[in-house]
Amino acid sequence: MTRKLYALCGTDRTRPFSPHVWKTKLSLAHKGLAFDVVPVGFTEIPMLEQGVTKIVPLFRDGEKLVSDSFDIALYLEEAYPDRPTLFRGEGGKAMARFVEGWSQMTLHPAIGRIAIMDIHDSLEPVDRAYFRQSREKRFGTSLEATAEAGRVDLETFSATLEPLRHMLKFQPFIGGDGPLFADYIVFGALQWARIVSPHRLLAAGDVVSDWFERCLDLHDGLGRSVTAA
Amino acid sequence: MTRKLYALCGTDRTRPFSPHVWKTKLSLAHKGLAFDVVPVGFTEIPMLEQGVTKIVPLFRDGEKLVSDSFDIALYLEEAYPDRPTLFRGEGGKAMARFVEGWSQMTLHPAIGRIAIMDIHDSLEPVDRAYFRQSREKRFGTSLEATAEAGRVDLETFSATLEPLRHMLKFQPFIGGDGPLFADYIVFGALQWARIVSPHRLLAAGDVVSDWFERCLDLHDGLGRSVTAA
Repeated sequence: MTRKLYALCGTDRTRPFSPHVWKTKLSLAHKGLAFDVVPVGFTEIPMLEQGVTKIVPLFRDGEKLVSDSFDIALYLEEAYPDRPTLFRGEGGKAMARFVEGWSQMTLHPAIGRIAIMDIHDSLEPVDRAYFRQSREKRFGTSLEATAEAGRVDLETFSATLEPLRHMLKFQPFIGGDGPLFADYIVFGALQWARIVSPHRLLAAGDVVSDWFERCLDLHDGLGRSVTAA
Repeated sequence: MTRKLYALCGTDRTRPFSPHVWKTKLSLAHKGLAFDVVPVGFTEIPMLEQGVTKIVPLFRDGEKLVSDSFDIALYLEEAYPDRPTLFRGEGGKAMARFVEGWSQMTLHPAIGRIAIMDIHDSLEPVDRAYFRQSREKRFGTSLEATAEAGRVDLETFSATLEPLRHMLKFQPFIGGDGPLFADYIVFGALQWARIVSPHRLLAAGDVVSDWFERCLDLHDGLGRSVTAA
């Protein structure tokens, strides 16, 4: 296989959890492209492919190496124009950046706090040390204090999904009639939460749950290939 | 003029303030279409055009009547396909619904609370009575208590703009290189705040301010045709 996707894992190498890697997995499946997943721990990332990146996903397509889930989606769209589109036009490409902004500045910090100890506990010892140090620097406090703050996020999380609920009054996917990369962006965040945290962030009967279940069904149930925590 | 846009105003008929009407004004200018603005008060809306609508904007284009800013944008895109596009493709059309959801579920409630007394005070007496009754029902409390809650919104408002700041790292408009209807959606909310409230919600030096100023400059400075409160 010439296509290789490096995917962040903890001790259990069958449970890749990075939200950004999930965006790329769904993007590749959307394009109908086969690929191998290479599980890696946090501290292995800087050593991959001669140290080309500090972040996953890192994607090898033959001779080509691309990191960052959005850049990979742009690359796939350009390299495989005859496969199903990930953006449906230039407007969709531009607005996917806004969806990324919303997901990463709203959902990610909340999920990061809610699940921080679960993520820590799932890692190899060497990665736990890295994770504690980097996240305590990022959040400016101990992992335990961040987890405590996450108890508030648990209560407010559902309210942050209101923009999706409004959109879902008009269409079944962010991409309209069918899913686009923008759906995978938000799916990635919620799939991350689903895999690492025993907290259920989406309530049954919520239209966002229904949309998330539709996303889990996509591409032969690719999202369900890893069970919920 | 066969094109007529009914626009919500208070006592000063030269200061239309509805966020939704501003979306349509910019949409019409984007398409290069001339139109007359017909100022109306809240309580006049149900009587317009044989009672066809309870909301503004209401837009008449010859024989055609359309209400709701998104529906008007869709109508303009279909009726004037040779003019500059408001969506740049089907993906952009779909994702504009998400932008609408974000703007209406995040920015609008905050601005509504922050500016509630300013809006009330700008209205004709008959509209003040309607506004108080309908808003006290909507918010479940007095206008004055809602205004008090708005003091918290003032402090948190800037943080709600983070999704825009992320997007602006990559491109000058939500629509990409140039503005699309999605920009006008968010512009409408902030223009509403600019016109009705003396509070300045955007700080100088903020990239969101820079984007908003770019939007005010569009279409010969249409947004600047009404001064800030």
